[in-house]
Amino acid sequence: GESFNPAEHPHRRFNPLSGDWVLLSPHRALRPWQGQVESEQAQQNETYDKDCYLCAGNERVSGEKNPSYENTYVFQNDFAALKPTTPDAINDDPLFTMQAVQGESRVICFSPDHSKSLPELSVSAITDVVDTWQQQVEDLSKKYLWVQVFENKGSIMGCSNPHPHGQVWAQNQLPSLVQTKHENLLKYFNTHKRSLLSDYVEREITADERVVVKNDDWVVIVPYWAAWPFETLLLPRFKVASMIELTQQQKHSLAEILKAITIRYDNLFNCSFPYSMGWHGAPHDGESHEEWTLHAHFYPPLLRNATIKKFMVGYEMMAEAQRDITPEQAAMRLKEVSAIHYKSEQ
Amino acid sequence: GESFNPAEHPHRRFNPLSGDWVLLSPHRALRPWQGQVESEQAQQNETYDKDCYLCAGNERVSGEKNPSYENTYVFQNDFAALKPTTPDAINDDPLFTMQAVQGESRVICFSPDHSKSLPELSVSAITDVVDTWQQQVEDLSKKYLWVQVFENKGSIMGCSNPHPHGQVWAQNQLPSLVQTKHENLLKYFNTHKRSLLSDYVEREITADERVVVKNDDWVVIVPYWAAWPFETLLLPRFKVASMIELTQQQKHSLAEILKAITIRYDNLFNCSFPYSMGWHGAPHDGESHEEWTLHAHFYPPLLRNATIKKFMVGYEMMAEAQRDITPEQAAMRLKEVSAIHYKSEQ
Ligand SMILES: O=P(O)(O)O[C@H]1O[C@H](CO)[C@@H](O)[C@H](O)[C@H]1O
Ligand SMILES: O=P(O)(O)O[C@H]1O[C@H](CO)[C@@H](O)[C@H](O)[C@H]1O
Repeated sequence: GESFNPAEHPHRRFNPLSGDWVLLSPHRALRPWQGQVESEQAQQNETYDKDCYLCAGNERVSGEKNPSYENTYVFQNDFAALKPTTPDAINDDPLFTMQAVQGESRVICFSPDHSKSLPELSVSAITDVVDTWQQQVEDLSKKYLWVQVFENKGSIMGCSNPHPHGQVWAQNQLPSLVQTKHENLLKYFNTHKRSLLSDYVEREITADERVVVKNDDWVVIVPYWAAWPFETLLLPRFKVASMIELTQQQKHSLAEILKAITIRYDNLFNCSFPYSMGWHGAPHDGESHEEWTLHAHFYPPLLRNATIKKFMVGYEMMAEAQRDITPEQAAMRLKEVSAIHYKSEQ
Repeated sequence: GESFNPAEHPHRRFNPLSGDWVLLSPHRALRPWQGQVESEQAQQNETYDKDCYLCAGNERVSGEKNPSYENTYVFQNDFAALKPTTPDAINDDPLFTMQAVQGESRVICFSPDHSKSLPELSVSAITDVVDTWQQQVEDLSKKYLWVQVFENKGSIMGCSNPHPHGQVWAQNQLPSLVQTKHENLLKYFNTHKRSLLSDYVEREITADERVVVKNDDWVVIVPYWAAWPFETLLLPRFKVASMIELTQQQKHSLAEILKAITIRYDNLFNCSFPYSMGWHGAPHDGESHEEWTLHAHFYPPLLRNATIKKFMVGYEMMAEAQRDITPEQAAMRLKEVSAIHYKSEQ
């Protein structure tokens, strides 16, 4: 009979971080699309918008006024999902288990320039963003076990304001996805006496099939088990468990690779490429965590062009993630696009 | 100090089926919405659409012609994600684990009437749909371990055709979400010697805080751990592990409750309410599975009205699900709307 071809035949790949499988149906990329089409993100041309609650000097819903900040600016979310003052409560009934959560939710403005997203900022401005992430993690980790830095980019990702910004949520328990990843990293470490992600990064650099961009310190790959069409994993090429440990040089090279990957994302469909991205590192419990390697995930929703996204619905909600194009094909496409932002080429 | 109030204070609830927690931030429902707004589903008025590939007598992309069916109609998906003929393959490298999948993907037309979704069909027509689900599970379970029946409803859920239809995907491995649920059901059964979901249904009926509708055989509740704003769980009030076991009477009362819950969904925002729904029951491995209780999940994306959805992004993708209104508030709202479909009241 025919022999198995991963670029053609349905198969599942295992995500060792989540413990979940992903169903790949590569032949399905040929399917015509008659479904919902998204509207394209409106182009932001003005560096200042008088109606934007994140622009410098403007007033927010809370009545508070933003300072005339020059690099980044951090404030408590006016509609914080987490609060430091929540009274304690707990129930361990196996069918009605609950616990109160203490925490904080902050907003991080990346730049006073309303019109520029990450790939359009200078490496030095992106280094300011990385510095701010590091300061926030350092600060919040003194009080909380988990500090989640993330960015929702684009209205398709529920982002209600195009002004470049991200968020940081901190809390006193490990969130579910983190808890599962923590257990899987620990299991691997206990078996192999090495960190899963350091082993993985070496294997990927050698294989060179899914690497999109790299520099001396960092590498971006489409993971073997990627669920979203153009999902990537940003990994260090040196030993580091938490963002707090990054040196000036490592933050600078991180800013460079962040610019490189987000430029390629924008160039893929010539649009401001939407995604959710976020950082995972060792929990802040005072232990050393040899099993942990700091890393970031990018989860972009687009599939075919600037207006057709992948729907994670039905089968995905009931059974497991499913994708059409293979991670190898996705990496190839991201590698092939220009390294210079399409807007600056115009 | 202040005492804890679950309708006001941030807390987490535990989902004993998935093992994941959900973060609740009830106070956050007050937040104004300035983000993306969806377009409303176009109203379907014609019972036949000459361009619809699911209408009776019409031609599909494959060149095949649909019969002039009168109740339901099932065919192999023209772009099947799963195929029975995939050659075998396996790799157990811990960082690059994969396996080939054999399976089938079929489409189930619920009715020849292009204009009518589930809540607008008669109970007898919905009973035909239930009969078809049962036949499909019976048929496919002879060859496959797992048979996933589901429906994606509405363009916002990636459904590319408004003609009432669902899907059934069958495969030879347990998908990730099912595997996890299976393990959790087994763990509970081994500890308590009872099925988790039979215990849960009794507790919920007694508490009567999250029940939306019920009849003698079935009940629909907003689960204590719901992640989506108006998520519901459809549970039997009798012992049943698989859809195959349902009697004529139980299928009829199931059709009644399916009509009741989908009418309430449509009436909530006076629109054709989008969702993904799907059935989970015991795996088809010839064992008796006392730990399993047949059930269906409804995962609807809408949050505030027909055009504002809940975005499961950033924090949700990196940390854990988050919701604003409480399950108790959601159940109350679904209970308060009329039991008669808004279109038939006009
Ligand atoms: O099979 P369809 O309806 O073309 O496709 C839809 O449902 C599938 C199964 O839930 C998803 O994988 C697709 O992303 C979605 O667009
Ligand atoms: O906090 P925002 O930007 O108002 O809200 C957005 O991000 C949150 C965190 O990922 C999500 O819970 C919301 O659904 C989303 O709309």
